[in-house]
Formats: sequence, structure tokens, C-alpha cells
Amino acid sequence: MTQRDRPDTRIVAFASDNYAGVHPAVLQAIAAANEGFTPAYGDDPWTAALCSRVRELLGAAAETFPVFNGTGGNVTALAALARPFEAVICAETAHIATDECGAPERFAGCKLVDLPTPDGKLTPELVRRGAVGLGDQHHVQAAVVSISQSTELGTVYSADELRALTAAAHEAGLLVHLDGARLTNAAAALGIGLRESTTECGIDVVTLGGTKCGLLGAEAVVFLRPGLADRYQYVRKQGTQLASKMRFVSAQLLRLLQDDLWHEAAGHANGMARRLADGLAGLPGVSLAYPVQANGVFAALPRRATERLMERYRFYVWDEDAGVVRWMCSWQTGEADVDALVTAVRAALV
Amino acid sequence: MTQRDRPDTRIVAFASDNYAGVHPAVLQAIAAANEGFTPAYGDDPWTAALCSRVRELLGAAAETFPVFNGTGGNVTALAALARPFEAVICAETAHIATDECGAPERFAGCKLVDLPTPDGKLTPELVRRGAVGLGDQHHVQAAVVSISQSTELGTVYSADELRALTAAAHEAGLLVHLDGARLTNAAAALGIGLRESTTECGIDVVTLGGTKCGLLGAEAVVFLRPGLADRYQYVRKQGTQLASKMRFVSAQLLRLLQDDLWHEAAGHANGMARRLADGLAGLPGVSLAYPVQANGVFAALPRRATERLMERYRFYVWDEDAGVVRWMCSWQTGEADVDALVTAVRAALV
Amino acid sequence: MTQRDRPDTRIVAFASDNYAGVHPAVLQAIAAANEGFTPAYGDDPWTAALCSRVRELLGAAAETFPVFNGTGGNVTALAALARPFEAVICAETAHIATDECGAPERFAGCKLVDLPTPDGKLTPELVRRGAVGLGDQHHVQAAVVSISQSTELGTVYSADELRALTAAAHEAGLLVHLDGARLTNAAAALGIGLRESTTECGIDVVTLGGTKCGLLGAEAVVFLRPGLADRYQYVRKQGTQLASKMRFVSAQLLRLLQDDLWHEAAGHANGMARRLADGLAGLPGVSLAYPVQANGVFAALPRRATERLMERYRFYVWDEDAGVVRWMCSWQTGEADVDALVTAVRAALV
Amino acid sequence: MTQRDRPDTRIVAFASDNYAGVHPAVLQAIAAANEGFTPAYGDDPWTAALCSRVRELLGAAAETFPVFNGTGGNVTALAALARPFEAVICAETAHIATDECGAPERFAGCKLVDLPTPDGKLTPELVRRGAVGLGDQHHVQAAVVSISQSTELGTVYSADELRALTAAAHEAGLLVHLDGARLTNAAAALGIGLRESTTECGIDVVTLGGTKCGLLGAEAVVFLRPGLADRYQYVRKQGTQLASKMRFVSAQLLRLLQDDLWHEAAGHANGMARRLADGLAGLPGVSLAYPVQANGVFAALPRRATERLMERYRFYVWDEDAGVVRWMCSWQTGEADVDALVTAVRAALV
Repeated sequence: MTQRDRPDTRIVAFASDNYAGVHPAVLQAIAAANEGFTPAYGDDPWTAALCSRVRELLGAAAETFPVFNGTGGNVTALAALARPFEAVICAETAHIATDECGAPERFAGCKLVDLPTPDGKLTPELVRRGAVGLGDQHHVQAAVVSISQSTELGTVYSADELRALTAAAHEAGLLVHLDGARLTNAAAALGIGLRESTTECGIDVVTLGGTKCGLLGAEAVVFLRPGLADRYQYVRKQGTQLASKMRFVSAQLLRLLQDDLWHEAAGHANGMARRLADGLAGLPGVSLAYPVQANGVFAALPRRATERLMERYRFYVWDEDAGVVRWMCSWQTGEADVDALVTAVRAALV
Repeated sequence: MTQRDRPDTRIVAFASDNYAGVHPAVLQAIAAANEGFTPAYGDDPWTAALCSRVRELLGAAAETFPVFNGTGGNVTALAALARPFEAVICAETAHIATDECGAPERFAGCKLVDLPTPDGKLTPELVRRGAVGLGDQHHVQAAVVSISQSTELGTVYSADELRALTAAAHEAGLLVHLDGARLTNAAAALGIGLRESTTECGIDVVTLGGTKCGLLGAEAVVFLRPGLADRYQYVRKQGTQLASKMRFVSAQLLRLLQDDLWHEAAGHANGMARRLADGLAGLPGVSLAYPVQANGVFAALPRRATERLMERYRFYVWDEDAGVVRWMCSWQTGEADVDALVTAVRAALV
Repeated sequence: MTQRDRPDTRIVAFASDNYAGVHPAVLQAIAAANEGFTPAYGDDPWTAALCSRVRELLGAAAETFPVFNGTGGNVTALAALARPFEAVICAETAHIATDECGAPERFAGCKLVDLPTPDGKLTPELVRRGAVGLGDQHHVQAAVVSISQSTELGTVYSADELRALTAAAHEAGLLVHLDGARLTNAAAALGIGLRESTTECGIDVVTLGGTKCGLLGAEAVVFLRPGLADRYQYVRKQGTQLASKMRFVSAQLLRLLQDDLWHEAAGHANGMARRLADGLAGLPGVSLAYPVQANGVFAALPRRATERLMERYRFYVWDEDAGVVRWMCSWQTGEADVDALVTAVRAALV
Repeated sequence: MTQRDRPDTRIVAFASDNYAGVHPAVLQAIAAANEGFTPAYGDDPWTAALCSRVRELLGAAAETFPVFNGTGGNVTALAALARPFEAVICAETAHIATDECGAPERFAGCKLVDLPTPDGKLTPELVRRGAVGLGDQHHVQAAVVSISQSTELGTVYSADELRALTAAAHEAGLLVHLDGARLTNAAAALGIGLRESTTECGIDVVTLGGTKCGLLGAEAVVFLRPGLADRYQYVRKQGTQLASKMRFVSAQLLRLLQDDLWHEAAGHANGMARRLADGLAGLPGVSLAYPVQANGVFAALPRRATERLMERYRFYVWDEDAGVVRWMCSWQTGEADVDALVTAVRAALV
């Protein structure tokens, strides 16, 4: 491929946090793992080291299973927790409900009970509302609450909110799954560690995201409550998520969890979103649709401005009717990228 | 991880071809793809270049969809070809039947009609025998023939055999899927190109393997018959096999298909298997279980010899009753590795 | 079982229309079909006669497949129309969404896109709103609109409404499935025939209900658009809905469709609902929650009155918060039953 | 339908035991259950009486769930016992493997490990052979042994054989499911009760057949081991096997289990098969393919004789290559029917 074939990559920078590349330290870790032969399917030193590191970070009971991607992690985690006649309560905006092409329904066989929320966050009250018809053979039996942290709307549950939510779920006999595609962003935003963000908040299982935080492609399903992981290895395999050369998946995750790289990368992304929100503040006709709490900025723009911006930038219109667009920041987003976007928005508003 | 934690990697070298690492040229291609931002989910220049390259190699009708792994590729390909009440005819030794933990049944909903063979290869006669009960509402309706090339037993279909098989399948109204986890080994063994090995033999869909041929982790589902791919993108996504940072998957495959790297890597692996077979020839009590036609060597050994060897080497006993063991060679296997194994076998026989 | 074990059956009469028994004419038809041996699985004269009778009534293209129950009919019909990555648009109150324990998701693999409605009826606008994300590989692809006629709220689509709805669906490339558990009630209410209610309104497939209209247990999936039924026999079998002694299922449906029995039975049920609604009119504190258009009456009652009534009668509270209860009438409901209920309601209100 | 439309029903009498009609006593029981209103979905006196009667017959732990048909019973029972990554060991000739159009794979998600047998009967040795790969994440995990009693080949396990089989299964950690579509025939043949045939032989779950024994259409899934039934009601509903007017299903089963009707009906069918086998004995060129132990007769005939017979009779060729045909007897088969068939066979042999 010649340079001419390649677009100016900065114009797509804000479309999604997975438009970014691989963090150099991660690429280095992949190269370092490329030494000779090693057993496949997880029986390798890198995977062992990853499992050990996760136990250090998330608690001694944590059992870690690397997978390829977020959808794969979510779907197999849910299938491990719920039987097909059971249901998963989630927000209407949850990735599992809107962006996985029905993978949870197909693989887990479950119904998703997706509830409207103002900000992408479930509440104890919503959990109770979703857990209806228990004991009625005609009705799916709610078994799992699945939340996203940070949410698909760029908002973040506080640790208190998480604790209240998991308490309500557990009281109703439900397990709690956390879609952590952007868990690092949430933890960095809250200024707390990964354990404080999950295990200590009562989360039972987390899909720990890495790809959006600078990895090439690596996530992990981590079971935090003893007993839940017992047969998961078969679910992962049947769910097509067992990597053969797993050392290269594990090495990425291991690196992310070393030297606080996750915190540095996610914190940077959050900071860029903050910078973008600050830059937009006060622009006439521009308003934030949701609080900017992690690495996403959702802003309502005049339609004409959006159209002009789209002539130069690639990003998603989140809500056509409300004129809300989404800009995502990543570990790779630069201050100059943000400032250029703000300038472009300002120009488009004229 | 320090060096002390790492085993002598050569002792596991023959356990499987996915115990090898990543070919240096492929690692380089991954690093080269790590330039700035690029659209996710396949809308990137590397994926476009890969699709174009596959069309050059396999024919203008070829439609290419990168996926994570072989099981994922096989399962989603079958789900694209067969409805749940339909059946897939395969050899009893097929990977889809023995090593995918029921993933085809779970995801595609299909029954596998797995037939015994002497050498891992289906025949026109077996295809006809498997396609029974057509039109009978109580019976699954055979719709797909799935073959592995090279087979799980290290044997290779000749081009003539493939043509006869696909002709029989098509005559019976069945489509032909090729599990090409080791297609490169087969093509290199036959001394023909990838197109001569697939499209020109009447194959309809191939799961094109890369991981076992020196990639980090990348395969592709390639549809060779027009019309079959129409809705596959949704099957791939629902099957959790859509990579977000797909450029890094595509870049691997693209590199494999450039400068005949596939041929060099697979040919080398085949040559090492040949060298191993030659080294074993004439050893007392050692006999080959199947012809060595690609990169695997299946040998019957005296049980005592196997036990002794296993004190030092890690490999799989393929058939406990028959005392058959399996040794796989890869792009990374060295002549010295092979010679050392032969020496060890000789010593174990004493 | 002695008489003493049996409750006074009238106190449960209004709980559901399937609490009623079998119409005497239907029981007679079952007995008449019990002559000697006859081929199983549908290759019998009664099934042939049924198929022929349905073609007379619904149009020459109608293809009829008897099944055991409504859930089975709905689920297999949807699986025949939609691939697993596709979606079914329905009302939030649809039986398939609320009362089938996730059977559609499990068997068809599909997501249900269930939309809120004021009266259980979809509209062209809702169809358009549900058919979003077409062409986006992350999103389920809407393929089917499923409506209930009459609805689960006792309301009835007019023929004009149906035509507008199917036109909108077809324009968007969607097929239309009609859950006709109470189609006979709707047709009788509209004063039109079954063909005018379905085929002529553009319905593609109907689950034709019989059990709620006086049968012992029999429904049929009827395909009205040529081509859709081609492989359905396998879906029905794999969906466990193929009756062995099918003559007894078909004989029930055949009798229902002879001599306008369906019209008599459904019309009677509707009349009893009408009589009940009239009896409630003007009672202080009682109001109808939805228009009474078929055989169901949904009424808001003071909570205290509901509690008192439930000491004597068995029926369902439909909406706890709104204090709405449901009373269903059937072919077996008598005028005296209705009048007794009205009297009891009046007494409970004091 | 006029008489002229109806074929001479005796010519189809031997094609299958479900070509027979409904036993008059059963039809009477259905009519008797048609008294007024009664709760649907199993909350009725007939279902309660059935559950009670089954506990009397099969043991105090027996939990009974009426379903529509055998495929539905088998599939939902297996789904209750096995998770999707688990496997069901069965004979290659098992109904679940050959005649349910892939329903077990589709609904339960499981692989069937179907093993060749000489007579349709599994053995402890076969159970051990089928339970391989346990603990290997690539391999389905055997969890259930499913047997048919009597078998699809008309053979019958002795009580000793059953006990040895269930002991081997339980030792391997597997549960045992019995497909009892013809359990009554087996019990009658063995001269023992239903409890001696199941519970006392260590069976965990049985699909208790009724339809082939003179019912209109009714089977039941009966859990014999405490704890297994806990969530089955949801599996049944999601599996589309929950009857609304269940009283009419239960009333059939209840009648079958009263006054030893099952024994009379099944014993009669067995006797007719015995009479047929005796009649065939000594006919030149005719030999029994399997011992006649229940109500089926499998005989090898000269091809020409089969062709001639088929000009007048309808029955199934079981094994085309071996020239084996199948004749089934039922509660309704008369001595004259048998004798006429023997006469016809004799004539066809000339």
C-alpha cells in the first residue's frame, strides 16, 4: 500500500476509540512474546502471568479467561451465567442490546429486557422493575443484570451507585455482569483502582476491555465470584472465543495491567474528552447531551453545522432527531487533534 | 517474565503447528499497520487490499471476510450455508466434529453427519451415503459437505479427488466448504496455487487458515461462488467474529499472501515433516500410520518408547489403542529440531 | 375424580378463554375421525380436507400446516421467515414478547424489537421506527412484522389499518406475520370473512388459532404468500410441532371452519364481552381501559373491589399500578355467567 | 368426507403403531374431562390426578410434566439435563438421532454422540467409549446417556441390562434419559411394572409415551431423581410444549395408567407382533432381522416379494441394502389383520 492510498488519519480520529492503533508498549510486548514455541490455547507462561496479575489487581478469587473481542466476551459471559429461559436486564442503550446483532439472543438463547434510562445507567428501581414474572412459567426469568461502565453514553456509575445496584440485584437473586469495554476509562475517571471499581462493588463477572485502551485486540472475561467459572472454558470454546496462540492475547492484557499503563492510557483519553468538552463550552448552539465523565463527548449541534463538519470529519450522528453527535477520544488522541476539532466546530457554526 | 520462568521451547515444538510463534515478516506487517487512526470493523485500507489480493489469487468472484480463528470461521461459514434443519456431511475425524466443542451444532443448529474414513478424506461415495432422507420431514436435510485440506491426519486430497468430490456434492445439490486451516500446506505439497486448490476444484467456500502458517491469529472466510456471501456480514457479527481493529488481522493475512510467504512457510513445514518421516524410516518398531503428505507425521511406536519420549518431549498420542502419536511441523521447526527428535526416538526405542 | 374434587367451574370462567372446554361439535368430529388406521404425520384425509378448506376460505395459494399450540405456531412461523440475525418488530404487549418465555429468541435466534403502543396495535409509523439500522452489520436486520389480531388488549385492527400496516411493511421489505390466536374473534367483530381479514389485507403468514375458539388443542400455520412455505415442514418438525396422529388435530380445525362454526363461537364470545361491558357501564369507579372490540374486557376497578371480587372469582390483574383487571369471554360463557359477574362487581364496589 | 374418499385402512395398519386410532376408553376419558371451565396450563384436577397416579406407579419422587409429543418430550428433557457444550450418548439408531430432524441439536445445542450397535441397545462398554475427552476444552463433555426402551429395532433391554447401564453411566457422572415412546410395550414384554422398568433400574428421567399406546396425542416427561425437575417448567414452555387446555392431555395419560389399560394395550400389540413372527417362521426366504421382543417385526424378505407386497400394503423398508422391512403392531391390530398379512407375504414369496 502506498502512502497515496491512505487517508489523512486524523479526520477519522473521533469516530470511535477503536479507530486508534496499538500502544507502542503493547506492540513491544507482543514482539517480546514471540520467542520460540509455546503451548497453545492458554497453557503458556504469559497467560499464567496474566491470571496472576489479575488476581493481584481484582482479588484472589478472580479467574481470568482471555477472549478475542468484547462481543465474544459479553456473549459467553452471559451464557455462562444464564440459562436460555432466563433473561438479562440491561439499559436500552447497552451495547449488548444495540450493537451485537442479536448475538446474546442467538448464543445464550436469552431475552434481553432492555429498559429506557436517561443516561445509560440502570438503577436499583429499574432492576426491580425488570425482574417481573418470576415463577410464572410463561415469562422469562430474570437472572442477570448487565451494566456498562463507562456507559455507551459516556457516563460513569459512581462506586456508590454500583454498590446500590449490585445489592438490589443480589437481593433479587440476580447476578451482575459488567461490560467493561471502557472499564479503564471509568476507573481512571473515578480515580480508583480496578478492584475498587468491580470486586469491591459487588460485580460478579466483568468483561475486561483492552482493545479500546490501546491493545491490538484482547479482552478477558474475569469471574469475581467463586464458582461461576467452573464450566466456562467450554462455553468459551463453543462460543468460538478460544485463541490458539493465546500468548499474544495474554501478553497484551498483561502489559496493559503493568506499570499502570491502563491508567495512563485511559486517563489520557478521558483528559482529551474533557479538553474537547471545555473547548465546546460556550459555543453558540452547542450543548452537551450527557455529562462528559469518561472519554466520550455527546453534543447537540445545529444540523447545518453537523453537515459542514461531516464534509471534513468522520464521526457518528448518535441521535438523528435530537441532532446529537458522538466524538470519542482514545489513548492516541492528541491535544492538537482536539483543538483542531474545536476550531472546525466553531467554523461550522458560522 | 524472566528467562528462568520459560521452558526450553524446543521440547514442545512438535506438539502442534500452533505452538510456533509469529513469522518475523508478519510481525513487521503488524507494526507497519500501526499508523495513526483508521476506521474499524473492516472499513480500512489493509482489509481492502487483502480482499483485492484474494481476488487476484482465488478469482474475481472471491469475497473475503477476516475472522479471528478457525473455529469461528468454520462455524460462521457453515451457518451461512445451512439452515438449522439441514446437515453437514464431514469425516469422522474432521475438526468441526471432534475439536470444536459442539460449536457448529450450537451456532448453526445443524447436525453433523460424520462418516468414518480410512484416511480423513471423504469420497464421492461417502457424500452420496451421507445425503440420505432428503425430502423426509423427520430427517435432517444434507446441504453442505465440509472437508479439511490438508486433513487432520496429515493427508492431502489431490486436485482430481477434490474435483470428483465437489462434482458429486453439487450433483446432489450440496455446497462444499473447505476447512483450510492447513490449506497452504496442502497447496504447497501439491505444488499448485491456491486457486488451483480451491476455486478450480469447485470449492464453494473456504476457511482460509493463517494462524498455523506463521500468523499471530488470523483466518478468513472466503466465498468463491457468487451469491453465497450476501448476508454473511451479519452472521459473522452475530457469531462474535467481527474484529474491531481489523486492520491488524487483515495485515497479517495480506502479508502471508504477498511474496509467496505462504508457500515458503508451508513448504518449509512440509519439508520438515518429510525430513522427520525420512529419519524415522527403518527405525525398528516404528511405522507411519498415514502417508506423510503435508506437515504432520503420524507414527505407531512401541508404547514403552512413547513413554520414554514423553519424559522429554511434549506431543499428543493420537490413538491410544494403536499406539499412534502425532508430530506436527511448522514454519519455525528447524532441521536441528527434527534431527534431535529422530535421535531421541532412536534412543527411546532401545 | 369425584365431583367433590372439582371446583365450581364458573368462578374461573373469566380468567381466560382457554379455561373453556371443547365445543360439542368438535368433540364429535374428533370421535368421527377415530375410524381405523390412517397414515400419521399429516398424510391423512382429514389433513388433506383441511388444507383444501383453508384454500377455499383464504385463497388458492394458502398452504396449511397444523401444529399443537399457539406458541409453537408462532415460533416456527417466525423461524421460517427470519434468519437468526434478523429481527421481528412487534408490540410491547405481543404474546410472543411477553408470554412465550423467550421461545422466539431461543428457537428463531432472533431479537424481538418490541415497541410501546397505546392499544396493542402497531402502526405504519411504528413499523418504520422499528426498521432501523438496516445494512449496519452491528445491528439486527428487521425482517418481519408480527401483529396480533385481535390484540392481547382486546382491540381489533380494522381492515384499513391492516392494509396500511402491511403496505408499510412490504415497502420496507418486511414480511407480515399475524398471530391469530383470536383471529376468529376479530373477523367476527369486523363482520368480515377470514380471507378479508388476512389475505386481502396483505398478511403473509398467519398462525390460525383454534384452541381459544372451542377446540381441544389445534392451531395451524398458514402461508398466504407463495414460496414462503417451501421448507417449513422441516422447521415444524425440528420445532417439535409435528403431530403424529395429525388427523385428530386437523379434524378439529376442519370442523371449526365448517358451517361457520368459527363465526358462531367467536361471535358468541364477543357478544358476551359486549354484554359484560354494557353491564359495567355506569358502575361508579369502573372504567374500561381499552375499547371492547372482541372477547376481552379490561376494566379499571378500585383496588378494594378487586380484592373482594378475587375472594370469589379467579381472573388476572393486568396492570397492578393502574388497577386494571382482565376478563375474557369464550364460546362457553353464558349470559348468566356474565350477569352474575356484573352483579358481583356491583356488590364489590359497595 | 365421504366413505369413498377413505382408503381401506387395514392396508396401512402395519406401517407404524401411530397409524392406529384412539382407544375407546381414552376417547371417553377426553369427553368426561369436558365439563365446564377449568384452569389452563396444568393447574387443573386432571393434571393433579395424573401427577399423583404417576407417583403411585413410579415412586414418590416422580415429577410429571405432560407434553404434546415424543420429540417435544425428548428434546426438552435433554435440554433440562445437559448444557449446550455437553453431549448426549445414544445408539446410532436412536429416534433422537435419526428421526427428529436435528431438534435436539437445535434446541439443546448439544452434540449427539451416536454409537453403532448390533441391536439398538447401548452397553456399559459403549457408554464408557462415548464418554471421552472429559476435561478437554476442545471436546464436548458427555453428560447424558439416552436410551430407547423398547428400542427402534423392536428389542428390549432386560432389567439387568438397564441396571448395568445406569450404573456405568452414573459412575461416569452421566445422567440417564429413557425415551419411552414404547416403554409400555417393553414393560409388558418383560412382565414387570413401570416402576420396575424405570425407577428401580436407575433411570433418571423418562419420556413416557402414550400416543403409540392408544392415546390421541399425549406424552409426559417424568423426572425420577429429585432436583432434576427444578426449572423444567420453563424449559417446557420455551420449548413450545406447554398445552393450554392441558386437562385433555392429562386425562388421556391418566386413563392409560388406570385399570392397567397400558398393560392391556401394549400387551396386545406385543402379542400381535409375536403372532406375526410366528406366522412368518418357516416361510422360505424370510428371516427375522432382530429378535421380536416388543411390538415390531423386522424381517428380511426377497426384494421381489417386498415389491409385490407393497402393491397392496403400506409399510417401511428399514434397510434397503439388506432387504429388511418393518411391521409394527398396535393396540388396534387384529388377529385377522395379522393373518391376512402373513397370507399376503406367503403369496408374495411365490
